[in-house]
Amino acid sequence: MVIHNTYSSLADTLSYRRQRLANLIDFPVILWSGSSSPRNFPANLLPFRPSSHFLYFAGLPLQNAAIRLESGKLELFMEDPKPSSALWHGEMPKRDEIAQQIGADAAKPMSELEFFLEDAATIAVQDAGTWTQQSQLLNRWVLPQNPLQGIDLELAKAIISLRLTHDEGALIELRKAAAVTVAAHKAGMAATSKATLEAEVRAAMEGVIIASNMTTSYNSIVTVHGEVLHNEQYHHPLQPNDLVLADVGAETEMGWAADITRTWPVAGKFSPTQKDIYNVVLAAHDACIAKIRPEVEYGDIHLLAATVIAEGLIDLGILQGNAEDLVEIDAHALFFPHGIGHLLGLDVHDMEDLGDLAGYEAGRQRSDRFGLGYLRLNRPLRSGMLVTIEPGFYQVPAILNDANLRVKYQNVVNWQRLSQFADVRGIRIEDDVLVTASGSEVLTAALPNDADTVENLVS
Amino acid sequence: MVIHNTYSSLADTLSYRRQRLANLIDFPVILWSGSSSPRNFPANLLPFRPSSHFLYFAGLPLQNAAIRLESGKLELFMEDPKPSSALWHGEMPKRDEIAQQIGADAAKPMSELEFFLEDAATIAVQDAGTWTQQSQLLNRWVLPQNPLQGIDLELAKAIISLRLTHDEGALIELRKAAAVTVAAHKAGMAATSKATLEAEVRAAMEGVIIASNMTTSYNSIVTVHGEVLHNEQYHHPLQPNDLVLADVGAETEMGWAADITRTWPVAGKFSPTQKDIYNVVLAAHDACIAKIRPEVEYGDIHLLAATVIAEGLIDLGILQGNAEDLVEIDAHALFFPHGIGHLLGLDVHDMEDLGDLAGYEAGRQRSDRFGLGYLRLNRPLRSGMLVTIEPGFYQVPAILNDANLRVKYQNVVNWQRLSQFADVRGIRIEDDVLVTASGSEVLTAALPNDADTVENLVS
Repeated sequence: MVIHNTYSSLADTLSYRRQRLANLIDFPVILWSGSSSPRNFPANLLPFRPSSHFLYFAGLPLQNAAIRLESGKLELFMEDPKPSSALWHGEMPKRDEIAQQIGADAAKPMSELEFFLEDAATIAVQDAGTWTQQSQLLNRWVLPQNPLQGIDLELAKAIISLRLTHDEGALIELRKAAAVTVAAHKAGMAATSKATLEAEVRAAMEGVIIASNMTTSYNSIVTVHGEVLHNEQYHHPLQPNDLVLADVGAETEMGWAADITRTWPVAGKFSPTQKDIYNVVLAAHDACIAKIRPEVEYGDIHLLAATVIAEGLIDLGILQGNAEDLVEIDAHALFFPHGIGHLLGLDVHDMEDLGDLAGYEAGRQRSDRFGLGYLRLNRPLRSGMLVTIEPGFYQVPAILNDANLRVKYQNVVNWQRLSQFADVRGIRIEDDVLVTASGSEVLTAALPNDADTVENLVS
Repeated sequence: MVIHNTYSSLADTLSYRRQRLANLIDFPVILWSGSSSPRNFPANLLPFRPSSHFLYFAGLPLQNAAIRLESGKLELFMEDPKPSSALWHGEMPKRDEIAQQIGADAAKPMSELEFFLEDAATIAVQDAGTWTQQSQLLNRWVLPQNPLQGIDLELAKAIISLRLTHDEGALIELRKAAAVTVAAHKAGMAATSKATLEAEVRAAMEGVIIASNMTTSYNSIVTVHGEVLHNEQYHHPLQPNDLVLADVGAETEMGWAADITRTWPVAGKFSPTQKDIYNVVLAAHDACIAKIRPEVEYGDIHLLAATVIAEGLIDLGILQGNAEDLVEIDAHALFFPHGIGHLLGLDVHDMEDLGDLAGYEAGRQRSDRFGLGYLRLNRPLRSGMLVTIEPGFYQVPAILNDANLRVKYQNVVNWQRLSQFADVRGIRIEDDVLVTASGSEVLTAALPNDADTVENLVS
């Protein structure tokens, strides 16, 4: 079946996705949107984020809703807003209006969902209220952490095969998220000279995202301690010799994400040692992107990054030996201990709610190698996939002070030379790269990453 | 027992609170902090907010921790960070260091908590992972929505009696939250002239909060549709004749909240009709604050606001009759349908996780009157209480177009006259007021609320 991948509306995009799903499975599917969780008391709610699988097929961030998909048909289940809610929440669109907007074939109250459950597959939503409801209605455990089985597993595999590559409707959203994220990073760089705390740079960046009526797609990292990989503290003062590492991404109202990291000097000028390492990381970044095209193994992209970083560190006198040999023994991972990137889409680690089912080609499993264990994507690339490329260099005390690692790598690291790079705690450069038929397109290319231009954006 | 209410440290503050609790109950208490909930996949977490009851006695926003209180003693239960977490999260403080900081008498792994449960009371934490754990360990249902019973109810009442008035340690934090919230509102006003969307004003306001390394204490309301009381949409364009209603508050790192509303003209100049209504609301606001002192009934403050609003609307020709009579029949509630305010502390509606147990004096219940049913606080005021005062005027279609209400109030509303105020959709003015021995102190007084100064801050 050939369906032209052009859309006049949200309803057409969703219809296309349903048809593709119907080509893969022959059982009904029910996907729940999820509900808000209370923060410190029931009326004070955490920000609502619908299930990504629901968003993919329902398009809109509806709360307490479900959709039923069967043979390309879409049924929407949700309650109409209570009359009393108009006082507090204003006039909200009614079920029938929403159904029309998303091209549903039918629209019913949530209370009728119980009559349409037979033989239906589903995927657990993250919030406990919803997976409890899923489990009760389907009369089996539907738990986020449970391994998928039976038709649920078949459904997950079918959805993965769709969501692995992005249709035009998705790309419109992903480009919007990328554009706002680019603007956020530029604002962060521009705000640095007047900022005294990490939190102020973060505010400038998230301010751009909030002003665009988007949310962050994950908790921002904005830190002078880039060596702490998932640093969610923002209280450190900015010192003139520090680097700011900012890993911040926007998410559109319909849930599509971007994910960019830049590293820049507080003073607007890299020190010579900072620039040397920055250019090693950038060389790895550029080499990986140059290699991206369909059929290339993402694992090989990771190894390429490792090799380029090892080469760069050899040139700087930090590592000793031959780059390929060093990568073979994971010496690069002393400084680059994470994977080169991940899938990106509705989730910033796309479909990671399904464990490694999306990230890893069937039959493949995580390596237990120090340098490969954190790789989140291990598949041949295909046109339409969106991946991040995010090499880095970090001086992580927990690694570099590890007695076993120091013994293991005593002959390949020049610790004396390394000590001259003490002003480089962490550098990462991350862009969002779409695999195209002929190679790749960097969706975040509007944000410069060469050292000189970054310096100019800061000062 | 006399304890001097002065503190040299967090540990002293916490010790003081424990001693006060020990004077009220004679059974052990275990309070859990709670844990993060996943957003769209397990590694992508919603922002963590500890239980307020835990924060009150433990002081720090610890995750996956519990404290046991007995006879003024404090025991901390939490796991030490795993060695592997240093890679991702950096070196985190160890249990013993935290125990010292908060003045704990003992510190044990969370896994040992099961040996210290006997006869202990608790209060449910909001996140399902934690209340499930509470229920399992205590071998009884501990559910956020369940009515409290037995020692849990006794504990709740004891905690309420402490938290109803604020000690010096709390006030230091509450003043910090108020100061940042004042700055956020000034930034929102200043950003309005260049903003085209509500979202941009919101960004300026939340940017100040983020830059101060705080969070919002609730989901911000920043809207030109002030008539939608809990409006959490930010996509509307700002039109020159619109009013922006911004209800935005900061929360400190230790969890203490502020809550301010201001309403200002997009163009920097109220229209005559907008200014007329604004001054009615401000008159109610000022009259309420002037009346606040110990022993005054908060319900009477609410009725005073209703009366002043009714008087103002009579003067403007919108209502007809005598103000007291109009309030008696709830005519004011056509335009002021909510309560005059609420308790404020660690929660923006303080202790609302306990239902009306904190807000309502023993033996009192919510009224079913149109004009009183939404009153969240109904107690005599006491020195050290912090309350909001937030009168408003709204033209809510769900109310003003309600056929029954139009009939009921046909003789008291001059609809013709009202139609001349069409450019006033919603106005609210809210400040945070501390009850003092001699009267009150407005913690948010640094933010002007008179119409002229507000205009100047905008333009």
